[in-house]
Amino acid sequence: MDTATHFTPILEQVLEEVRPLTLHGKVASYIPELSHIDRSKLGMALYLPDGGIYTAGDAHERFSIQSISKVFTLVMAYRTLGNALWERVGREPSGNPFNSLVQLETDKGVPRNPFINAGALVVTDILCSQYVNPHLAILEFIRQVSGVPDINFNTRVARSEAQHGFRNAAMANFIKSFGNLKAPVDNVLQAYFHQCSIEMSCAELVRAAQLLVHYGTAPGVSEALLTPSEVRRVASIMLTCGTYDAAGDFAFRIGLPAKSGVGGGILAVVPGRMALCVWSPALDVHGNSLAGAKALELFAGRTGFSIF
Amino acid sequence: MDTATHFTPILEQVLEEVRPLTLHGKVASYIPELSHIDRSKLGMALYLPDGGIYTAGDAHERFSIQSISKVFTLVMAYRTLGNALWERVGREPSGNPFNSLVQLETDKGVPRNPFINAGALVVTDILCSQYVNPHLAILEFIRQVSGVPDINFNTRVARSEAQHGFRNAAMANFIKSFGNLKAPVDNVLQAYFHQCSIEMSCAELVRAAQLLVHYGTAPGVSEALLTPSEVRRVASIMLTCGTYDAAGDFAFRIGLPAKSGVGGGILAVVPGRMALCVWSPALDVHGNSLAGAKALELFAGRTGFSIF
Amino acid sequence: MDTATHFTPILEQVLEEVRPLTLHGKVASYIPELSHIDRSKLGMALYLPDGGIYTAGDAHERFSIQSISKVFTLVMAYRTLGNALWERVGREPSGNPFNSLVQLETDKGVPRNPFINAGALVVTDILCSQYVNPHLAILEFIRQVSGVPDINFNTRVARSEAQHGFRNAAMANFIKSFGNLKAPVDNVLQAYFHQCSIEMSCAELVRAAQLLVHYGTAPGVSEALLTPSEVRRVASIMLTCGTYDAAGDFAFRIGLPAKSGVGGGILAVVPGRMALCVWSPALDVHGNSLAGAKALELFAGRTGFSIF
Amino acid sequence: MDTATHFTPILEQVLEEVRPLTLHGKVASYIPELSHIDRSKLGMALYLPDGGIYTAGDAHERFSIQSISKVFTLVMAYRTLGNALWERVGREPSGNPFNSLVQLETDKGVPRNPFINAGALVVTDILCSQYVNPHLAILEFIRQVSGVPDINFNTRVARSEAQHGFRNAAMANFIKSFGNLKAPVDNVLQAYFHQCSIEMSCAELVRAAQLLVHYGTAPGVSEALLTPSEVRRVASIMLTCGTYDAAGDFAFRIGLPAKSGVGGGILAVVPGRMALCVWSPALDVHGNSLAGAKALELFAGRTGFSIF
Repeated sequence: MDTATHFTPILEQVLEEVRPLTLHGKVASYIPELSHIDRSKLGMALYLPDGGIYTAGDAHERFSIQSISKVFTLVMAYRTLGNALWERVGREPSGNPFNSLVQLETDKGVPRNPFINAGALVVTDILCSQYVNPHLAILEFIRQVSGVPDINFNTRVARSEAQHGFRNAAMANFIKSFGNLKAPVDNVLQAYFHQCSIEMSCAELVRAAQLLVHYGTAPGVSEALLTPSEVRRVASIMLTCGTYDAAGDFAFRIGLPAKSGVGGGILAVVPGRMALCVWSPALDVHGNSLAGAKALELFAGRTGFSIF
Repeated sequence: MDTATHFTPILEQVLEEVRPLTLHGKVASYIPELSHIDRSKLGMALYLPDGGIYTAGDAHERFSIQSISKVFTLVMAYRTLGNALWERVGREPSGNPFNSLVQLETDKGVPRNPFINAGALVVTDILCSQYVNPHLAILEFIRQVSGVPDINFNTRVARSEAQHGFRNAAMANFIKSFGNLKAPVDNVLQAYFHQCSIEMSCAELVRAAQLLVHYGTAPGVSEALLTPSEVRRVASIMLTCGTYDAAGDFAFRIGLPAKSGVGGGILAVVPGRMALCVWSPALDVHGNSLAGAKALELFAGRTGFSIF
Repeated sequence: MDTATHFTPILEQVLEEVRPLTLHGKVASYIPELSHIDRSKLGMALYLPDGGIYTAGDAHERFSIQSISKVFTLVMAYRTLGNALWERVGREPSGNPFNSLVQLETDKGVPRNPFINAGALVVTDILCSQYVNPHLAILEFIRQVSGVPDINFNTRVARSEAQHGFRNAAMANFIKSFGNLKAPVDNVLQAYFHQCSIEMSCAELVRAAQLLVHYGTAPGVSEALLTPSEVRRVASIMLTCGTYDAAGDFAFRIGLPAKSGVGGGILAVVPGRMALCVWSPALDVHGNSLAGAKALELFAGRTGFSIF
Repeated sequence: MDTATHFTPILEQVLEEVRPLTLHGKVASYIPELSHIDRSKLGMALYLPDGGIYTAGDAHERFSIQSISKVFTLVMAYRTLGNALWERVGREPSGNPFNSLVQLETDKGVPRNPFINAGALVVTDILCSQYVNPHLAILEFIRQVSGVPDINFNTRVARSEAQHGFRNAAMANFIKSFGNLKAPVDNVLQAYFHQCSIEMSCAELVRAAQLLVHYGTAPGVSEALLTPSEVRRVASIMLTCGTYDAAGDFAFRIGLPAKSGVGGGILAVVPGRMALCVWSPALDVHGNSLAGAKALELFAGRTGFSIF
C-alpha cells in the first residue's frame, strides 16, 4: 500500500460490497437482548502501528463483544500464570462446536483451547483466583488497554445469559468435577457472563487490540503486558482456534488471526502490522458474522495483510 | 426347587463362597460418608411370591441404596405419565459409563434410559412436577410399598452428594439446556441427591420389590401400582440397562433383571417368581458390587431362577 | 396355553393384524438382489419342545437370512473356543448402529458383541482358522442342525454383497489393524458374505433353532453342541444385542431373545420353551422387520412366552 | 537478518543444540523398513527466494518422505480441480489422531482436511481419475518441481506399507462406502503407498518446495502451477492441519506452516520468504519428529521467520 490515507476508501468499498450479505444468516437469539439487534448494522475499523485509526459505517456504535472478550481474559491469565497456563487449558483446535462437552470428557476436564467456552471458563477461573472482583478487574483491564474509561457491562445481557446459560453451567460443573475449576462454579459463571456482556465499538476494539499490535505494550500502561513471543502465541491461537470449528476455513479464506463473538463482531490482529474489527450481527452456521467474515476476506485480499 | 425351606442354606453357602471376593474391588470414595463403610459387610435376602423372606449374613443392616432408588422412582414416574414417559427418556442400553455426557449431546438431551444418571434426573424431574416435596413423596412411596415406616434419608450423605455432585449438576444443566428438565435444576438435584441417600437393608429392599414380584400390587396398597405388562417392561429395562455398561455381561453371567447402586447393593427381580437382594460394599470397575454380582451368579445358577 | 393345537390360529390371526404394516418401512436396497423382493411376503413359524411345528402365511418360502446367520456362527465359534471366545469379542450392547466403526476405535479392535457386523467378522475369522472352507462348514452346520440338506447360498447375493461391501471391508481391515483378525481379510469377508446369503424359510429356521430350544442338542447330531449354560448365554446375548441398536426397545416391547436380518427375518428363541420365526421384508429405521417385530410383540403378548 | 551468509552457522548451531533430543522419542516401527533407520541422523536445509540453499548435518541424505508427499499431491489435485476440490475434502483441523475413523463416520466420508490420511486418500483418488499411472505421475511431478531427476520410490517400503496398511485399507473402504472414492480401492492404496515411499533429502525437499516459496512457479516449469492465492491457502492448511493433532501446538511454538512425515522429516514453508526442512527419525507421541520440531522452533525464534 502506498499510504495509510488509502484505507478509509477501501474499508468503505468493502462494506458496500458485503452489505447485501447482511440480509442472510441469523442474529443470535438465545437471549432476547441479543435477538432485538438491527441486522443492518455494519461497521469496520482499522488500527495501524503508527497509531492511525480508520473507520467506516457503524464503527463507533457499541455492540455486545461476547466471545471477543476471551482475547482479553486470555492476555490477563497468560500474564498471571505464564506458561503454567497451558497445564490448565490446551492450545489445539477442537474440531467440534464451541459449546461441545464431548471432548471435555475424553480430555478429562482440560479444554482444548482458551477460545472455546470450556477453555474460557478455565481462563476466567484463573482470574477468579487472582481478583476479588474478577468481572471488575476484566472491565478495568479493557478500559485501560483501550484508553476508553466508559466502556461497561450491559447488565441486562449478563443477567439474561445467566438465566439461559444452562449449557455453560453444565460445562463449568463438568470441569469442576474434574478438578480444573478452583473457584465456586457460580463465581466463575458470574464473571464469565459479565465479561461477555461488555459493549464496545469496532473503533474501541481495535484500540484495545493495540497491545497485540505493539507486541505487548499499550499507551496508558507503563509495563509490558506480554512479551513479544507471548503476543505471537496469542495470535497463533487466534488463527487456529479463534472462530469456533471454522478456524481452518477462516485461515484458508482470510489468513488473519481473529476472534469472533455471537454479537456479530470479529477482531483480527497481525502483531506489528494492524488490528482490524468488523461488526455485522447476522451469523453463519458456525456462529461467526456472515458479512463480517466476507469483509475481512475482501480487505485482506486487497491489502495483502494476510499472514500467509 | 423342592421347597422354600431350602433357600436359607443356599444363601448362606453362596455368601461363604463369595466372601473372599470382599477383599477385592473398591469401596465408593467420591464422598466421605460412603468411603468409611466396612468392606467386609455381606448380606443377602430373597422374597418369594408366597410372602416368604429368606436372609443370610448382614441382610438386616441398612446401607445407602443409591441408584437402586431409580427402580422406585421409575415406577412412580411410569404410573404418572404412562407411555408418555418414553418421550422424555429412552429405553436403550447406553454402551457408555453411567455418568457420561457424550450421548446426551448426540441425543439432544433425551437420556438413553432411566437407569443412567441422566435418565434418572429426568425421571426425578417428572416427580418434581407432580409433588410439592418430591423427595418426601419418594420416601413415602418406598415406605409404603415396603411396609417399613421408618426407612429414611441419610441427610449427611445427601448433603455430601450435593457438595461433590458436580458431574450430576453438569448433567442436569445440560439436559435443561435441551429443554428436557421442567423444574429448576437445583430442585431436581436436591430431590435426586435425597433419593440416593435413602438407607435400607437387603430384607427391606426385597419387600419393597414385591410390587414387581406381584405384577404391580403391594400388600398395603389398595390399587394396582402398575399393570402386569408395565411391570414386565420395568424388568426388561433392569435387564438391559440396570447395571451400567456391564448390563450385557450381567445378563450373560447372571440372567436376572437387576439394578445396582454404588453403595454396594444389587436388587434383582423376576416378576411372578422372586426378588433377590445382595449387599457387599466393594465395587468392580463398572461400579457394581464385585462379591454381590458373583453371589447373584452362583444363586441363579443353583436355583434356576435365571430368565433364560 | 391349553394345547398346542391352538397355536396355528393365533399365528394366522397375528399375521392378519400386522399385514397392513407390510405397506410401511423400507425393503433393504443396498444390493439389487435384496431390493427386488415382494414386500407383501409375510410368514411365521413356531417350534415347540415336543417337536411340533406350527406355521402361517409364507412360512415355507425361503428368504435371505442375512444376520440371522450370526446366531449359528456364534454357536460354532463358542463350541470351538469356549469362553476364550470372549477375549476376541465382547457381549455388551453397543448403543450404536450395527455398522459403526466408532466404538471399534475406542475399544481397540475388540467388537462389543458378536451380533454387530464387526463382532460377526471376528466370529467368522475364528471359523476361518478352524476350517479350510469356512463358508462350506457354516452351510453344512446349518443343514445338519435343521435337518434340511438342500439349504444353500444365493451366490448372486454373496457376489453382490462383496461388490458393495465397502463398509464391511473397512471394518475387517480396521479389526485386522488391531490384530484381532487372524485370517487374511479377503478370506474372512468371503466367508462372511456367503453366510449372509444363505436362504431359509421360517419353518427351516425354527428347526435349525431347536438346538437352542433343546439346550444344545439337535436331532441328527449325536453329541451336545453346547452346554445348557452356554445356550442360556447365547439367548442372553440375543436379548441384549440381537436387534441392533433397538435391542432395549425389543426387550421392552417383546421380551424375547431374538436376532434379526436385513432380509426381513427375525428368529426368536426361549430355551426350553420355543423357537419362533417371522418374515416380512420391509424394515424400520433400525434395520429390523417392521411388521415382523409387531407380529412377535402380539404373539408374545397373547401366549405369555415373554421371558419377563 | 543481515545477509544470507549467516544462515549456515545458525543451522549448524541449531542442530548441535537439538542433537541430545535425538536420543528421545521413538523411530516409527510399524514397518520394518522404517524401524531400522539410524536415529542419530540429523539434517537441515534452508531455501531462500534468491535461490540460495543452506544446509547442515545430514541434509543431503535421503529418507522416506512419507506424509510430506501430501503437500505435493495436494498441489497436483488443487491444480486439477480448483476449488471443486473442497467438495471432496475439508480444510478444518481434525482434533483427532491422523488415522482416526471416528470423524469420517460423523462427516459421512468427507475427510476433515487433505493432510490426515483419510483426506490424502481422497486427494490421491483424484489423481487416480486424472492419470493412468498416478504413482508415476506423482513421482514425475516431484522430480520436475525439485529439478532432481533421480528421486525415486523405495519399493520395499511401498510393498511393506501395503502389507501392513490395514488401517489405511479400512479408511479407503470406509470412504468408498460413502461414495467419496471414485477409483477402485486397491488402485488408490497402491498409489498412496508409493507416494509415501518416495525418498528425498532435506536439500531436495526445500528445492521441491520452491514452487510454494515462489507463489506457484518453479524453475523448470513453464506455466504457473498454482496462483499466489492458492499457494497462500496451501500454506494456511499446512499451518492448521500439517502436523496431525499437534497443529495448534506447532503454530503456537513454531509459527510456521509445516508438514511432517513419520520418516522423521518436517517441511516448513513461508510463501515469499523461505522453505525449511529438517530430518531426525525419532518421533514424539503425535508422530512428529521430536528433535526436528525443536530445531524448527529454535530456528524460527532466532531468525524471525515466524508468520505471527
